[in-house]
Amino acid sequence: MQDYLLSCDWGTSSFRLKLVDTLHHEIINEARSDRGVAIIFNRWNTADKENKLISLEHAYLNELQQNIQAISDKVLFDIQDVPVVISGMASSVIGMREVSYTPLPFPLDGSGSTVECIYPTLQCPHKIYLVSGVCSKMDVMRGEETQLIGLASMRKDIYTAKKILCILPGTHSKHVYINQGSIIDFHTYMTGELFNIIAHQSILKDAVFGDRALTELSMSQTDAFRCGIHNSQDSNLLHALFNVRINHLFKLLTKEDNFYYLSGLLIGSELNELSKRANGRIVLCSESNVNTLYKQAIQYLDMIDGTFLIDANIMDNAALEGHIKILHYQID
Amino acid sequence: MQDYLLSCDWGTSSFRLKLVDTLHHEIINEARSDRGVAIIFNRWNTADKENKLISLEHAYLNELQQNIQAISDKVLFDIQDVPVVISGMASSVIGMREVSYTPLPFPLDGSGSTVECIYPTLQCPHKIYLVSGVCSKMDVMRGEETQLIGLASMRKDIYTAKKILCILPGTHSKHVYINQGSIIDFHTYMTGELFNIIAHQSILKDAVFGDRALTELSMSQTDAFRCGIHNSQDSNLLHALFNVRINHLFKLLTKEDNFYYLSGLLIGSELNELSKRANGRIVLCSESNVNTLYKQAIQYLDMIDGTFLIDANIMDNAALEGHIKILHYQID
Repeated sequence: MQDYLLSCDWGTSSFRLKLVDTLHHEIINEARSDRGVAIIFNRWNTADKENKLISLEHAYLNELQQNIQAISDKVLFDIQDVPVVISGMASSVIGMREVSYTPLPFPLDGSGSTVECIYPTLQCPHKIYLVSGVCSKMDVMRGEETQLIGLASMRKDIYTAKKILCILPGTHSKHVYINQGSIIDFHTYMTGELFNIIAHQSILKDAVFGDRALTELSMSQTDAFRCGIHNSQDSNLLHALFNVRINHLFKLLTKEDNFYYLSGLLIGSELNELSKRANGRIVLCSESNVNTLYKQAIQYLDMIDGTFLIDANIMDNAALEGHIKILHYQID
Repeated sequence: MQDYLLSCDWGTSSFRLKLVDTLHHEIINEARSDRGVAIIFNRWNTADKENKLISLEHAYLNELQQNIQAISDKVLFDIQDVPVVISGMASSVIGMREVSYTPLPFPLDGSGSTVECIYPTLQCPHKIYLVSGVCSKMDVMRGEETQLIGLASMRKDIYTAKKILCILPGTHSKHVYINQGSIIDFHTYMTGELFNIIAHQSILKDAVFGDRALTELSMSQTDAFRCGIHNSQDSNLLHALFNVRINHLFKLLTKEDNFYYLSGLLIGSELNELSKRANGRIVLCSESNVNTLYKQAIQYLDMIDGTFLIDANIMDNAALEGHIKILHYQID
């Protein structure tokens, strides 16, 4: 039943499975959870010996099959023969099975992905294509390369462009240099993760309160966010972060606004160098969750004229489009 | 009994109480614990209503009196009339009693400290002098100003110097500008706290292992530390931090060495601007715990010729010397 595909994006802290009609590129049904690779691995790793009798791969297959079953229960046809394509951290050393990184340059037509086949078993009667990530000499990614394959398949201008920089915001933001259909270099920024641990684990946790995924900011939140971006540009980050405490101690900002000041400091730091040497060929490829913030930041940093904005809905579906392309090369 | 003093340095995460002979500047006995202000406040704050019948101040006085008693049990004379001087976070909003910051400029002879007296009670039969901190327009400190009073009393060259920058490393490092016996400005850097949360709470926790307080580094630890400093100088910190993961994934460094690479990245970032505009008047005022690392960093950044190094033993006693000076002004 090659007209369907189970597209799975299994990240560090999230699990997304979509049953897709590959002819019409339509999502038939989906399952989501926060049971990312970190949770599955940690539960397995800390289980007592008795429960550890199942292998780590087995634990992942159980989790996957439960989600496939949940989707199967909601559709009227049998999906037992539908292949599964998985990208993200599931191919890492703490994932389902470790698959080596593909070195650069990496073609974005889906032909260059390193894919490990896991054959159907009683436990999980689906053929699984486990897609690996990409490495440069001093960096790695797992998942974003597949999103970029999907993006390039939807946007031919991205696929054919010369020397563009795609920004994929996230827990570990990726700045990916693409030239004529290939990834030629990339850099990781720990923006999202730093934000999370600073906002929840540091002394600053008492100075901020909020939800980073808001799609619309109030006037005062916008002002605070811009103030954070501004202060990030010429200031040492280790010092600028203490401003978050001062804003609170001196009652300069509410906790709700201060949350966006902190976000502005970190996103501003990530984009700092780009704003100084922007060359008009930046593409913002943000999923819905932080799209508003990155767009605001790029506007405030006067980079908007040289930046192409990819619609967040397109990025939300980029992984599954990448899976369709990759599967095409595996089957033909 | 004014020839003795109970000198208390009560920080966010540590408690140090010393019985001092103020004539000979000798420590007779001392008590230390990790029961800093954060622990005392959080335990009180989360206690059920019944236990909360005692006030926060009462909870602090109980803790203090237990430590005084422990010292009293170890000396042969009665210390009931010995006054207590407390500096650090104990005067903050989550401390024993909030005392307003003293604004800049702040004289280092002990005459300018804002001090709140807490009179003897049955619960704690000692007169307590609670020393407040200092604020600039956009920064605050509690404790370091008292250490600097102590340092200035031991080192007249520091007290009389024109325009020097004292670096006090720590959880929140302070860079303090001093001119002719007064603090005229200062900046906080969250170096130590960022190190702790990154090394213990982030994805990088699996890539590092070690003890930051080592007094002697191995050859490979030194190399890794220097490599971290080097990479911090021209690199975006949010990106450079991901190198810690790469060092581990690509087996470039052991976890033990990688720990010092991370430390080098952060200390290097803190000192980054100074190395670029060093003007020969820097004074490193580090306590023993991180003295080795900051000295190494200053050497590696070619700032050693323009830097005065204060002996770590002097800094370990700076708070108590500050307390002697401050008490002098309170009693005379």
